[in-house]
Amino acid sequence: MNTNQGHIDLSHGAGGRATAQLIAEVFRRHFDNPLLAQGNDQALFQPPAGRLVISTDGHVISPLFFPGGDIGCLSVHGTINDVAMAGARPLYLSAAFIIEEGFPLRELVRIVESMAAAAKAAGVPIVTGDTKVVERGKGDGVFITTTGIGVVPDGINISGELAQPGDAILLNGSIGDHGVAVLSQRENLGFETTLRSDTAALHELVAVMIAAVPEIHCLRDPTRGGVAATLNELAQQSGVGMQLREEAIPVRTEVAAVCELLGLDPLQIANEGKLIAICPAAQADKLLAAMRAHPLGAAAAIIGEVVEDKLQFVQMTTCFGGNRIVDWPVGEQLPRIC
Amino acid sequence: MNTNQGHIDLSHGAGGRATAQLIAEVFRRHFDNPLLAQGNDQALFQPPAGRLVISTDGHVISPLFFPGGDIGCLSVHGTINDVAMAGARPLYLSAAFIIEEGFPLRELVRIVESMAAAAKAAGVPIVTGDTKVVERGKGDGVFITTTGIGVVPDGINISGELAQPGDAILLNGSIGDHGVAVLSQRENLGFETTLRSDTAALHELVAVMIAAVPEIHCLRDPTRGGVAATLNELAQQSGVGMQLREEAIPVRTEVAAVCELLGLDPLQIANEGKLIAICPAAQADKLLAAMRAHPLGAAAAIIGEVVEDKLQFVQMTTCFGGNRIVDWPVGEQLPRIC
Repeated sequence: MNTNQGHIDLSHGAGGRATAQLIAEVFRRHFDNPLLAQGNDQALFQPPAGRLVISTDGHVISPLFFPGGDIGCLSVHGTINDVAMAGARPLYLSAAFIIEEGFPLRELVRIVESMAAAAKAAGVPIVTGDTKVVERGKGDGVFITTTGIGVVPDGINISGELAQPGDAILLNGSIGDHGVAVLSQRENLGFETTLRSDTAALHELVAVMIAAVPEIHCLRDPTRGGVAATLNELAQQSGVGMQLREEAIPVRTEVAAVCELLGLDPLQIANEGKLIAICPAAQADKLLAAMRAHPLGAAAAIIGEVVEDKLQFVQMTTCFGGNRIVDWPVGEQLPRIC
Repeated sequence: MNTNQGHIDLSHGAGGRATAQLIAEVFRRHFDNPLLAQGNDQALFQPPAGRLVISTDGHVISPLFFPGGDIGCLSVHGTINDVAMAGARPLYLSAAFIIEEGFPLRELVRIVESMAAAAKAAGVPIVTGDTKVVERGKGDGVFITTTGIGVVPDGINISGELAQPGDAILLNGSIGDHGVAVLSQRENLGFETTLRSDTAALHELVAVMIAAVPEIHCLRDPTRGGVAATLNELAQQSGVGMQLREEAIPVRTEVAAVCELLGLDPLQIANEGKLIAICPAAQADKLLAAMRAHPLGAAAAIIGEVVEDKLQFVQMTTCFGGNRIVDWPVGEQLPRIC
């Protein structure tokens, strides 16, 4: 099997010889680890003691390759982050591919290499998987669904309904980088930036954060729908309001400029290496210091606080001193951003 | 949200208000269980003591609805079965949807109801999920990737590399039903049968089997690529050959007729409620009796035995007394059969 040329065809999804060859020469070869090498339709492992979490995410980003990343590393980071947002240490990933007939084998290998590198860097192996092929025009290159499991350290209880009035809201860095970087690559949008996606695995940052402040109430990564969707979700789950300070929210000049140009709100743009943390106010400075000491939290900031509000509004004091409601994103925003 | 009318649009995948509404009114409502109700991007649980397994499968079957089932129940059964083939008791499922813009909401609800019913019947809740939407023409209705985890009872060691020369090969019933039932629905094939897919969750049958014969060496469900692919996989993994007896393999008259007509080999046709079991010959009758006592094993049979063969061939004594090699399926066979 020469993976420098050739294309995926329907036989690669038929479960026969071509499927076996694709699995052996592309997936097993690059994802190589003892659990995957068991060679069964499932991976067997002895979990560490403690509570576990499971999370799954389908990845349909378009284009597949974008500044700062590709669907491969994104599909690893995305699910690691969803697992980590419970305060968990991610243990294992599974990966299911849905590939369109005619997809270049060379590009598939490039994506798989990127996944393998991301999994290795994160220390979270891809231990089982699946491959399906759909006819030309019934898919779009490749879709990757990853599922992750992780173990939650004893004493850690992080969940969306635990935000309390008075709690501080923290963010680990600038918002909108991923969405704007991807947008810059979409063919018909005609602008270019030097901006790169922020795609990153956040579990090591989370480990540092819970070590410093085990009392963290909520963690969530503001992906699709951005900080606006995430904070509205948390406000609804916890039955609280939130008050943000616009001036405290890091937004790169370039992101702000693109949003201004296209009439987008940076608060509604997807991120792939950011998290929102909510903790008791008394612990906020300690948490901020821990975040800033980690490379993925160098630009961390306290961006607001949780307030009592029966209407569960997220509001923001603007840079001009006014106050506005930060509503749920409505409509399609940026389709296929992750 | 009136789920009797309307269609999925890109806003349902954008992470904002429409996504939240779809999750609440379709997925959470039908899959309803305490873990899903946690409402986070991951589900938290305390696993039972013991070794765990994880398995994932993407489902892209076409058509979405077929005699005896649909993509919904199939996506539940398929992953439960992959988990059960380690001898494991399935605990939880995750489900990730990739939906094409314009897909009727009514059909999505029908599929979700089928998944919910299958999960409930199996006693395996869907505890976390994800929804993405792709533009019209970039998908095909709906794709569903499910991931399952299960717990393996102490003392059970079932794996593809454990087949030994002398072992008996068992099958729990007639082959090819699923593939031929789906084929009968494909628009351009112009034949109809009363045959139904055998789609079923096999974990309860497996529980009965391992209770009777804990020494089972291998279990695998012959889905894509059929019994031929599965036995070749096991022969390769274990470094053995296999000798089947054609007359012992249950094939419905209707399946045999359709295969004859279309030039297909029943051994290469997909099944969704069948399993291959390999156990020491001395335990074969006991295992067969246990299988036959369960509704999903009523037509179980001993279909052959494991032999020494450095070439790892699967061979079969035909009904006419000859011998033929049962090779890996080559080419596309039946695309999108699961």
